Amino acid sequence: MEDKLKLMIPGPTPVPEQVLLAMAKHPIGHRSPEFSEIMAEVNENLKWLHQTKNDVLTVTASGTGVMEAGIINFLSAGDRVLVGSNGKFGDRWGKISTAFGLEVDTITAEWGKPLDPEQFREKLEADTEKQIKAVIVTHSETSTGVLNDLETINRYVKDHGEALIIVDAVTSLGAVNVPIDEWGLDVVGSGSQKGYMIPPGLGFVSVSPKAWEAYKTATLPKFYLDLGTYKKSTAKNSNPFTPPVNLVIALQTALGMMKREGLESIFSRHQRLMEATRAAVKALSLPLFGSDEYASPAATAVIPTSVESEQIRSVMKKRYNIALAGGQDNYKGKIFRIGHLGFVSEQDILTVIGALEATLQELGHQSMTPGAGIAAAASVFAKS
Amino acid sequence: MEDKLKLMIPGPTPVPEQVLLAMAKHPIGHRSPEFSEIMAEVNENLKWLHQTKNDVLTVTASGTGVMEAGIINFLSAGDRVLVGSNGKFGDRWGKISTAFGLEVDTITAEWGKPLDPEQFREKLEADTEKQIKAVIVTHSETSTGVLNDLETINRYVKDHGEALIIVDAVTSLGAVNVPIDEWGLDVVGSGSQKGYMIPPGLGFVSVSPKAWEAYKTATLPKFYLDLGTYKKSTAKNSNPFTPPVNLVIALQTALGMMKREGLESIFSRHQRLMEATRAAVKALSLPLFGSDEYASPAATAVIPTSVESEQIRSVMKKRYNIALAGGQDNYKGKIFRIGHLGFVSEQDILTVIGALEATLQELGHQSMTPGAGIAAAASVFAKS
Repeated sequence: MEDKLKLMIPGPTPVPEQVLLAMAKHPIGHRSPEFSEIMAEVNENLKWLHQTKNDVLTVTASGTGVMEAGIINFLSAGDRVLVGSNGKFGDRWGKISTAFGLEVDTITAEWGKPLDPEQFREKLEADTEKQIKAVIVTHSETSTGVLNDLETINRYVKDHGEALIIVDAVTSLGAVNVPIDEWGLDVVGSGSQKGYMIPPGLGFVSVSPKAWEAYKTATLPKFYLDLGTYKKSTAKNSNPFTPPVNLVIALQTALGMMKREGLESIFSRHQRLMEATRAAVKALSLPLFGSDEYASPAATAVIPTSVESEQIRSVMKKRYNIALAGGQDNYKGKIFRIGHLGFVSEQDILTVIGALEATLQELGHQSMTPGAGIAAAASVFAKS
Repeated sequence: MEDKLKLMIPGPTPVPEQVLLAMAKHPIGHRSPEFSEIMAEVNENLKWLHQTKNDVLTVTASGTGVMEAGIINFLSAGDRVLVGSNGKFGDRWGKISTAFGLEVDTITAEWGKPLDPEQFREKLEADTEKQIKAVIVTHSETSTGVLNDLETINRYVKDHGEALIIVDAVTSLGAVNVPIDEWGLDVVGSGSQKGYMIPPGLGFVSVSPKAWEAYKTATLPKFYLDLGTYKKSTAKNSNPFTPPVNLVIALQTALGMMKREGLESIFSRHQRLMEATRAAVKALSLPLFGSDEYASPAATAVIPTSVESEQIRSVMKKRYNIALAGGQDNYKGKIFRIGHLGFVSEQDILTVIGALEATLQELGHQSMTPGAGIAAAASVFAKS
């Protein structure tokens, strides 16, 4: 059956009908007063979503593009940076730093495990000469479904006093609490196809006054990703370069929906969906890839043993028209990931768990009690 | 009246209904076989549109982003480049080159006048030590409606033998003949919201084997805009970073429309619309900003003397719901520009000229014969 796809991957995430229809309107001029009004509303609502008074800048780029902007605007070649890496995206920020001639010191953890904040504390405390100019941390590591302890790591960065904290919040912003001003996060990057409930194509980055101070002396070359020009334009509700006007109008609609739902409700919904998904997967005797303690609100990674991961994905897709994500890099073919990020409801989780049960029955997964997945998810919903 | 806007600016340009509706479909996963099939078709049709066997790479960025990619991937700090500048965009490529530490030698012409190919010849012939590594030329200068003589300039670059030619074809590709393989153009950048008939958000760049040779030794830092990674992904009909899937699906639809219309028809349509617009403007006794000989198929710039340019734009917008572009930088408030790029037909030109006549009557423009604009446009259409 056509047009029945359910997209349960951690990005692109599902998009509400009202957002799709807003996006399908004929484009308007990006220098018109009408567009400037839209930008004004969007800019205000982005600050609300980011819980910040800092600038929140919108760039036509993927999450990687905007994270690159978040790194190169505040540093100079040879600067030392501390990069946390426990998955594909942490790895990538290290690669960007290296490509731009930064001196990269990496703190790693195994895929599926969280970064250890104590290792950050040690490195930062040992740096009495304040050589570390920035600490780059991925909050929600999408490749593994692990949520790193940003709050604690950030506290050690604050104790250091000198280093900026640069955060990849691509799959955490709009899903779990990231109180930028309360925690004092300097640079926070995110992407449209995640918690924002719109298609890919826009990246967002919030920048603190401390980061703007660093910008003044940072010498890495930049033009398209020079955030100083975005700051100036944003203050005038404009853009330095032609923005994807249809996506911006989609964003306006989606931010309106998010405001009506409210931040607390959005966060508790994600928490509930994650708990229900994890409870159901466990009840179906499938091993979770990471522990509950560090579970990401964006995606749940599962590492099946008695059934092939790719077989599960294949039946889920072909028979039930549900797209799940596979593993990346070394975990390709070994894990699958259920996205529960953005425009996802209890209804969707029951659907995906029901289909997962049916798939496991079809594939002859022995150790499961039929119906146990839905029962476990329902029990989470009953409690909260 | 709402929803009656006619967008007659040189980008964003009008978007066909079937493209808008394709774009409004629910996103699919960017790593799915279905999306890979779409990419395969899009990649093949992009080569058709570019008249090339070279790689044509798609980047999530504005035209500026993709032009930056076209410059920084093939050069190293200190390299000498020759930049042609006779408008806002030529200026910008010079600024990018400077920001990345290139040694910039600029050939300028007044705004509204074309670049003089002889000046390129002289500089290139004098460079017997082959210090010039690239020549950067804007084909259609959108800010002034001038089409530079790319064919002749390129011939001198070919005589030089060493330098790459890097072309801003943002508002010429898909509007006027840019035969990449026939002319041997090394790097050609363009943007989705122009001749492509889709909203902004995607940039395109074609890269010749000679440019890939230069890539191997080029040392400017890059990651998000590193075209080598796009080349690898494109060969597998994939993307290095999450692409704006809805825009790619819009592109698939638009390229299908373009193939059905055919390249020759597209070019002759743009030529006809440009000629009709210019004939009408002249017939209404409004001075054109540039000469017919170098008129761009993307936009016609008008520099009115007896009526205020911004008054014309204001009445056109408020009374007739037609958006015209204003001037940029020094020509802000002095010129207006009529876009006739992409999804624009004879019908649209008659509409805009009719409204322009009505506007001029309302504003008391003395020297015009009522009806002369439509008569002149119709006479161009009657002949071709």
